[in-house]
Amino acid sequence: MKNSKLKTPIKKIGVLTSGGDGSGMNAAIRSVVRYASHNGLEVAGIMRGYQGLIDDDIISLSHRSVSNVINKGGTLLKTARCKEFFTREGRKKAAATVKRHGIDALVVIGGNGSYHGAHLLFSEWKVPCACIPGTIDNDIRGTDATIGSDTAVNTALDAIDKIRDTCTSMERIFVIEVMGRDCGFIAIESALGGGAEDVLVPELKFDLRKICERIKKGRLKGKISWIIIVAEGAAKAQAIAAKITKITRLETRVVVLGHIQRGGIPTAKDRILATRLGSAAVDLLLNNQYDKAAGIVNGEINVIPVREAIKKKDLKVDNFYRLINILT
Amino acid sequence: MKNSKLKTPIKKIGVLTSGGDGSGMNAAIRSVVRYASHNGLEVAGIMRGYQGLIDDDIISLSHRSVSNVINKGGTLLKTARCKEFFTREGRKKAAATVKRHGIDALVVIGGNGSYHGAHLLFSEWKVPCACIPGTIDNDIRGTDATIGSDTAVNTALDAIDKIRDTCTSMERIFVIEVMGRDCGFIAIESALGGGAEDVLVPELKFDLRKICERIKKGRLKGKISWIIIVAEGAAKAQAIAAKITKITRLETRVVVLGHIQRGGIPTAKDRILATRLGSAAVDLLLNNQYDKAAGIVNGEINVIPVREAIKKKDLKVDNFYRLINILT
Amino acid sequence: MKNSKLKTPIKKIGVLTSGGDGSGMNAAIRSVVRYASHNGLEVAGIMRGYQGLIDDDIISLSHRSVSNVINKGGTLLKTARCKEFFTREGRKKAAATVKRHGIDALVVIGGNGSYHGAHLLFSEWKVPCACIPGTIDNDIRGTDATIGSDTAVNTALDAIDKIRDTCTSMERIFVIEVMGRDCGFIAIESALGGGAEDVLVPELKFDLRKICERIKKGRLKGKISWIIIVAEGAAKAQAIAAKITKITRLETRVVVLGHIQRGGIPTAKDRILATRLGSAAVDLLLNNQYDKAAGIVNGEINVIPVREAIKKKDLKVDNFYRLINILT
Amino acid sequence: MKNSKLKTPIKKIGVLTSGGDGSGMNAAIRSVVRYASHNGLEVAGIMRGYQGLIDDDIISLSHRSVSNVINKGGTLLKTARCKEFFTREGRKKAAATVKRHGIDALVVIGGNGSYHGAHLLFSEWKVPCACIPGTIDNDIRGTDATIGSDTAVNTALDAIDKIRDTCTSMERIFVIEVMGRDCGFIAIESALGGGAEDVLVPELKFDLRKICERIKKGRLKGKISWIIIVAEGAAKAQAIAAKITKITRLETRVVVLGHIQRGGIPTAKDRILATRLGSAAVDLLLNNQYDKAAGIVNGEINVIPVREAIKKKDLKVDNFYRLINILT
Repeated sequence: MKNSKLKTPIKKIGVLTSGGDGSGMNAAIRSVVRYASHNGLEVAGIMRGYQGLIDDDIISLSHRSVSNVINKGGTLLKTARCKEFFTREGRKKAAATVKRHGIDALVVIGGNGSYHGAHLLFSEWKVPCACIPGTIDNDIRGTDATIGSDTAVNTALDAIDKIRDTCTSMERIFVIEVMGRDCGFIAIESALGGGAEDVLVPELKFDLRKICERIKKGRLKGKISWIIIVAEGAAKAQAIAAKITKITRLETRVVVLGHIQRGGIPTAKDRILATRLGSAAVDLLLNNQYDKAAGIVNGEINVIPVREAIKKKDLKVDNFYRLINILT
Repeated sequence: MKNSKLKTPIKKIGVLTSGGDGSGMNAAIRSVVRYASHNGLEVAGIMRGYQGLIDDDIISLSHRSVSNVINKGGTLLKTARCKEFFTREGRKKAAATVKRHGIDALVVIGGNGSYHGAHLLFSEWKVPCACIPGTIDNDIRGTDATIGSDTAVNTALDAIDKIRDTCTSMERIFVIEVMGRDCGFIAIESALGGGAEDVLVPELKFDLRKICERIKKGRLKGKISWIIIVAEGAAKAQAIAAKITKITRLETRVVVLGHIQRGGIPTAKDRILATRLGSAAVDLLLNNQYDKAAGIVNGEINVIPVREAIKKKDLKVDNFYRLINILT
Repeated sequence: MKNSKLKTPIKKIGVLTSGGDGSGMNAAIRSVVRYASHNGLEVAGIMRGYQGLIDDDIISLSHRSVSNVINKGGTLLKTARCKEFFTREGRKKAAATVKRHGIDALVVIGGNGSYHGAHLLFSEWKVPCACIPGTIDNDIRGTDATIGSDTAVNTALDAIDKIRDTCTSMERIFVIEVMGRDCGFIAIESALGGGAEDVLVPELKFDLRKICERIKKGRLKGKISWIIIVAEGAAKAQAIAAKITKITRLETRVVVLGHIQRGGIPTAKDRILATRLGSAAVDLLLNNQYDKAAGIVNGEINVIPVREAIKKKDLKVDNFYRLINILT
Repeated sequence: MKNSKLKTPIKKIGVLTSGGDGSGMNAAIRSVVRYASHNGLEVAGIMRGYQGLIDDDIISLSHRSVSNVINKGGTLLKTARCKEFFTREGRKKAAATVKRHGIDALVVIGGNGSYHGAHLLFSEWKVPCACIPGTIDNDIRGTDATIGSDTAVNTALDAIDKIRDTCTSMERIFVIEVMGRDCGFIAIESALGGGAEDVLVPELKFDLRKICERIKKGRLKGKISWIIIVAEGAAKAQAIAAKITKITRLETRVVVLGHIQRGGIPTAKDRILATRLGSAAVDLLLNNQYDKAAGIVNGEINVIPVREAIKKKDLKVDNFYRLINILT
């Protein structure tokens, strides 16, 4: 934390999780609470993300409150998508709650929308915030990975492995939809790791006719089972499967993995990421660095302004896509 | 096998897996092959279920062929639903293949349809068969469990646990559809084991208005997250969720677990069941007991005629259903 | 509960977990608490087994106290092996605590020692108890399975699968020690399910020279990797491995699975067993059936006197042992 | 591959896995085989590492040979530690085998010893090699991670989670030994991710008296359960536990995780790493870049001379160690 502008020392922080939950959020909360306590700070837990600021639903958190949560999915502070907070009036109420509770600064754990909210709260009402990326989508700038993304990929992979058993045994074409509204991260990683035959991501145009050509050619060589991963942001699995059947006249099966990708026991990577970022966020606040987002880039803590972090992240998928196609 | 009618000693058996795959089929094949070899029999592997008999797609299996498969999902012999076999002409072809290869008897691993096929093959063409239950649905008579059903329940449970993380964190109503076309086995077991708030199974009538009443009452008492398990044979999760939303005006989320329930590493129970039944099927053939199905009832091998095994199994769900409702 | 002797209706029960922990104990506690609440009873949670009765460490449990614990390993009431309780003076103290708190009856979740303690508490001080089997060893009479045993077997199996990867890749002899002081249950189930080449259990004499002969013979036929499961009650893996090396002059590796077998997410079977038995125990108390143990035999609730339940259970291992040897 | 010195085009490569196995080796073999085939190369599989070169145990590998292995632990080519190869005479034999089979270059998948062997084979006998890091220890230079290390950490973590259940329920001190002869990687990652109370690694001196002081102090504040992770290269868990008991007079329990850390289904990270590095190794050979090791640094393929890769890697553990101590 080089260029810290030492102003007023903070005494009490609040922590919240907001937006879609991801595995590792509890590990992040634990780190925030214990690292802050270690540094002499009081910690308030805000329930249901920004909603808790509007409803004044706030609990006290101590070292013990976060025992045995490092390996639990979900978030003990609960989370929500709060519409009222995205009105100026809502944020005014939120800022008043912060003041009323004597909270000097906030740690916000969430995705793009949550970051945006934190930025507004600081810009309009001078509530100091530090943001860390809690979202399975891995679509936040300034960090190589987001908390929950590694767990989501491994959960998708576990499902793909199971489906592969049936796919191979019954010689079917499976179209599997994974999460990722704007970002093909889970799709491309699970496709490469799962040995999928093809993958559709929002970052790349796809030509279904070509895919069908490959399927038909493969069939002539005896390759009959086929797994195609589809990021929800690229297409609907159901529609893709229907078109493949129409073009190839082959049976297809569809699986939409859905919400199993958010929860579950976090992987080592997500726990370590969450633990490091939780302490980094507290460090930012201790150093009066506000409106900043912490991430990890090339193994080191990386800090950028929140307004930079929420710009569109460009996921490079070309290398992985090329490998998937070569190795099929 | 007490009352065996010793007729001609058999020398070569065939083994096939048919219908939807289930985890543990490989453990069953391993047991058939090694137990038969141990008893001096040759073993032929028939590919793709009855299709392999029609296409004459048959391989030789030895002790080594089944090394390291006991813990693999799917089936190394592949499986299929073969329409041609369900014509008399098809079965004639199949019986000719059996004869051509010098196969004296078959072990059929599969579900209801596969059992029915085996019975026809024996009735019409005198091909001796022993059947063992390989299906995740647990809808075969004469056995407490079928190969793959314990794994399917545990896989469903793992998914429910993950979804519970999000359900609790985001305070949502989730409707989760599990497999089970005619049978609520996976649904009722995973609902009780998963602590689900409600379950819809084909064995019981349900009253969606009452369920919605409970949801609304729960909400007044602060109970906001809710998981409802739906067997695919009872209703479509999507339709149930839509109606709940309509009646309660609360948001719902739907997850259809789908094909992840068939594959994956088999549980201890499925491996042991498969191993015991594989050897029991060979014992039946060694004792010239034909057209019989082996299962395990109260821990002991149980043998009934195939035509009995395929009658509708009555799953008793009342006790479990009562507990689910009391414990919510 | 047929022959119930209706005496005084009970109003408040206590629940405790005692002895070594097993996965599913939390599911059992949840069931006891909610089933009792549903029947109008108050529930006290006794911490650390009988130690909590001696130390007067008792908490109040409600429907909410047991939310989201059905899938958690360990026990929220903690557990201990309490020496003082096994003195008459200790039990006197314990009985006084029970009385002081207005507790009418106890549900005891544990193994042999815990059952014995419950029996003494009833015999000497008229504290009514109902026992349910919480132990990974599966050595309690009157039930086909104990809570935690299915999870332990599956955990052992997962470890064996992983070791098999190395065993096969590096062509080694592995001796793996699993839990089971007086009972070969985990060993024989995980050996059959894991495709182990041999197993040593307390129930059967073994001849290490014969095992070494098989290893040497196998080697001549090209079988080089070998897994031998040892129940801790049969022998020490380290000693067995040393002897095998001495006799065969082949390298061996040892893995002692140890405490990983107790914890972890409970399987479907353990959760369902725990849930059914928890409610059965409360039913016993509601029907003034005291000093009884509930189990499940052939799928149905089974009740026997506690003093019967703690007699030595005879595990039949012959069939499984024979299969292991045939299928290797 | 910029500065490639285009010499003779290669036509046939060999691939081998050597040293201790790690999960993901099969994914690496798959990638080597298919990427090479795609580029018109023939691929020979060398069995049991360098032993296969000495024994002339070589198989042909095609696209189909590596179907469905991406998610399998162990190595289909088997592996060994070959003493004879570490004599000049042994390597001469190996080089002759390479020549006899018309193999132009080798891909070596393994750890330090295997890299060293590849370097000698090139230096002495001009057998061109490309090395990729297959070892759970993560002790190879020029790469952020080695194939198998992420899986090993996650397996250790899963075991720690399970032991934590018992540790908390029974309020015990556990000393858990993980792999890592010269390197504390698995220990430090699993300790941070597992929320362990302390960790002993070869990279840092430790003071057992201080640890015992912390345990005693914690006890006064009510902290009774304690997990200490020990890298096998730092100390023996058994000895550490005995000393803690001697100093604190508290009971301790020991678990040595052992060989479960090598095998099992590879994580997404290990599969992707293996897949990328497998193709990178083939690229090196296609570009006549010999005696080089490929790794991934900061997300990009990184190539260094083999003799650099085997120098001692300095694992930085200070930050993680500090966090572990703060967050306990």
